[in-house]
Amino acid sequence: MGDVFSQLSVSLDGYVAAPGQSVQDPLGRGGLRLHEWAFATESWRTQHGLADGERNVDAEVIEEMTAGVGAYVMGRRMFGGGEGPWDLTWTGWWGEDPPFHAPVFVLTHHAREPLSMAGGTEFHFVTDGPAAALARARAAAGDRDVCVAGGGSTARQCLAAGLLDSLWLHVVPIVLGGGTPLFDGPLDAALAPEKVVAAPGVTHIRYRVRH
Amino acid sequence: MGDVFSQLSVSLDGYVAAPGQSVQDPLGRGGLRLHEWAFATESWRTQHGLADGERNVDAEVIEEMTAGVGAYVMGRRMFGGGEGPWDLTWTGWWGEDPPFHAPVFVLTHHAREPLSMAGGTEFHFVTDGPAAALARARAAAGDRDVCVAGGGSTARQCLAAGLLDSLWLHVVPIVLGGGTPLFDGPLDAALAPEKVVAAPGVTHIRYRVRH
Repeated sequence: MGDVFSQLSVSLDGYVAAPGQSVQDPLGRGGLRLHEWAFATESWRTQHGLADGERNVDAEVIEEMTAGVGAYVMGRRMFGGGEGPWDLTWTGWWGEDPPFHAPVFVLTHHAREPLSMAGGTEFHFVTDGPAAALARARAAAGDRDVCVAGGGSTARQCLAAGLLDSLWLHVVPIVLGGGTPLFDGPLDAALAPEKVVAAPGVTHIRYRVRH
Repeated sequence: MGDVFSQLSVSLDGYVAAPGQSVQDPLGRGGLRLHEWAFATESWRTQHGLADGERNVDAEVIEEMTAGVGAYVMGRRMFGGGEGPWDLTWTGWWGEDPPFHAPVFVLTHHAREPLSMAGGTEFHFVTDGPAAALARARAAAGDRDVCVAGGGSTARQCLAAGLLDSLWLHVVPIVLGGGTPLFDGPLDAALAPEKVVAAPGVTHIRYRVRH
């Protein structure tokens, strides 16, 4: 059985999103800076029309994280479409061919029929909580990994509930001064660094979660 | 001219000391856990009667940080002896032979004559602020480095005032949930990781400070 893991970009002061978050601006004011390392990688590759050509260290980390993933879990805020009952025209932020290419279990309080997208992405909507979503994702993933894709509060909730086997933190050397903290209470688990990748603008650390 | 640097152990939620700090307990309740990686190293070496024998990765980082230091700056709280005018019987937490072996410039609001200790440590008491203390430390260090030894608020003050050239953060995978944050406002500088050392219990990252 694969790992259940999550991966988060975190500021030096421990925030995964900046102040001023809203449904329209889920990362808050300036929060995009947390993800520039990843966006740069993607945009660079797309811009050059490369699938698996030259890579920088950050791209290798993304590749390593995602290569073994057989299913995803994500929160409603990350999927988007506002709060409350669904506007059925909303099919996520990612267009017709989302970058997941696997089943994605979306946590929500509002039931909805599954959505099949191009490229193998299938969104399933789960109304009975993170543990149930992870059980369905594990079943779908088989021997492969399950990635809790985010947002921050979903990843935190899974970590606090003892549902993660490992956690990648991308430590970004910026100070946000507020926003969504990675942790909002004591951690009932030990994190042991098991892999560290030094990139020019960010330090990637994979922790093993021991309960 | 050497670097002016500081080095701090920081929790995953961005704290350099735990809640419940006092003059008697400057690291707060549970804050000692931030420094166990360093204490383990020291105690292990002392216990085995080794000066520079076998070393682990953490000990190598300590060696690398301190080998080039020609003078230190520290805050009153780190030096100890309470607040207010000096009790002249207080000569620091470290006994007769403190581990600095160099001039140490202690920031204080209360003047005091210098103290010469065994092993080359000399404590000088500076009442005109961090920039003045750093100027005196630079002069004393010559071509060697100046280390802002702490505590957290002194290091933060020097970083915020643009007085540091580099900063070692020892990222400890614990969550303190409060205490003294490493940063208490926006950072008027860019931090670029320039060296990363992966140890079993802590990740050491040296940042270059760009103003």
